[in-house]
Amino acid sequence: MAISPQPVELTEAYRLLNHGPVVLISSGYQGKRNVMAVAWSMPLDFEPARVAVIVGSKAYTRTLMEASGRFAVNIPTRAQAAKVLAAGSRSGRDGDKFADLGLESFTGTHPDLPLVAGCAAWMECSIEPEKDMQTRYDLFVGRILSAWADPAIYSGGAWHFASDDQRTLHYTSGGFFSATGDAFEVKA
Amino acid sequence: MAISPQPVELTEAYRLLNHGPVVLISSGYQGKRNVMAVAWSMPLDFEPARVAVIVGSKAYTRTLMEASGRFAVNIPTRAQAAKVLAAGSRSGRDGDKFADLGLESFTGTHPDLPLVAGCAAWMECSIEPEKDMQTRYDLFVGRILSAWADPAIYSGGAWHFASDDQRTLHYTSGGFFSATGDAFEVKA
Repeated sequence: MAISPQPVELTEAYRLLNHGPVVLISSGYQGKRNVMAVAWSMPLDFEPARVAVIVGSKAYTRTLMEASGRFAVNIPTRAQAAKVLAAGSRSGRDGDKFADLGLESFTGTHPDLPLVAGCAAWMECSIEPEKDMQTRYDLFVGRILSAWADPAIYSGGAWHFASDDQRTLHYTSGGFFSATGDAFEVKA
Repeated sequence: MAISPQPVELTEAYRLLNHGPVVLISSGYQGKRNVMAVAWSMPLDFEPARVAVIVGSKAYTRTLMEASGRFAVNIPTRAQAAKVLAAGSRSGRDGDKFADLGLESFTGTHPDLPLVAGCAAWMECSIEPEKDMQTRYDLFVGRILSAWADPAIYSGGAWHFASDDQRTLHYTSGGFFSATGDAFEVKA
C-alpha cells in the first residue's frame, strides 16, 4: 500500500461512521474471505466503542462473520464507487470477490480478517453475543477492537478531502451515490 | 407551511434515511412535546418498514417516546443546521424547545406527535416492544406508519437539491456538518 494507516483512538472511532457513509463489511475464516457493501450501519456507543451493522441472512459474509466472530468495517472513497456497487451486487459464494473486483486486501491485527486497501478508514470488530438481534433484525453489534484511518483523508478527528476521489460515499439506491461534502462549522 | 408534504410509499421510506443524514427526533405526550438531534440512525427493514434510532436514557424526548409509544423522524436541511445543532445541545426539560429554537411544528396523522416544519422529509413511527435493546443499547426500533417528503427536494424515489439550503445534512462532530452532495450514477 502507498499509504500507512494511522491508529484512531477507540473512543473517537465513532467519528469515522458518524456522517453515515456506505461501508464495505469484510470477514474471513480459515482461508475463506469475503466483502460486501452495507448502507445500513451506525455507531452504537462511545465506550466501549461499538457499531451496529445490518447483514442479511443470505450473505456469505455473514456465514464468515458467524464462524469467526469478527468482521471489519471499511470506509470506501469515491474512487472505489464502482467496486462498492459491484461488491453489493454479486455473491462471494461464486468465487473470491476480492480477486473478481480487483480489490487488494491487507491485514491489521487478525491474520484471517481482510481489510480493503484503498479505503479511507478501517475498524476491526468482534461480534457481541446478541443472537436475538441477529435473528430478528439481521443486526450485528460489533465491539471495535482497532481502528485506523488514511492520514491524508482523516486526521485530528476530522475528515479533510483534498480531492473528489478521496471523499467518502453515501448510498441512496439504484446505483446512485452522493459524495460527502466539505465540512462546515455551525454555531448553535 | 409553504410546501405540501407528499406521501412516500412505506416500502420505499428507507430511501429517506439510506444516505445517513442527521435527523431530528420528535415526540409528544399529553400536551408536552420535544425534539432532539440524532446522528445515530439507520433503516432497519423494508417491509414492514422499520428504522433504528439511538436515544440516550437522559433525553426528555425518550421520556415522551416511552410514554406515547411513538416518535417521528424529521430530516432537516442545511438551512436548518444551526437549529439542528441547538436541538442537540439543550434539554427540553428546561422549556419548550420548539418555541426556544423558533421551530414550527405541524401534525401528520397523530395529534400528539409534532413534525418539524421546513424539513425535507418526515416519518411517523410506533415503537416496537424491544425493551432489551432499549435498555442495553439505547436502541429504539420504530415501525414506520407514515412517511412524507417535500416534493421540491425528494420525489420519484430520489433526492434532487435545487439549492445548497435544501441539501440534507451529515453530522461529524464538534459543530461540524457536511451537506449531501449531488447524486451520481455508477455502473457495476
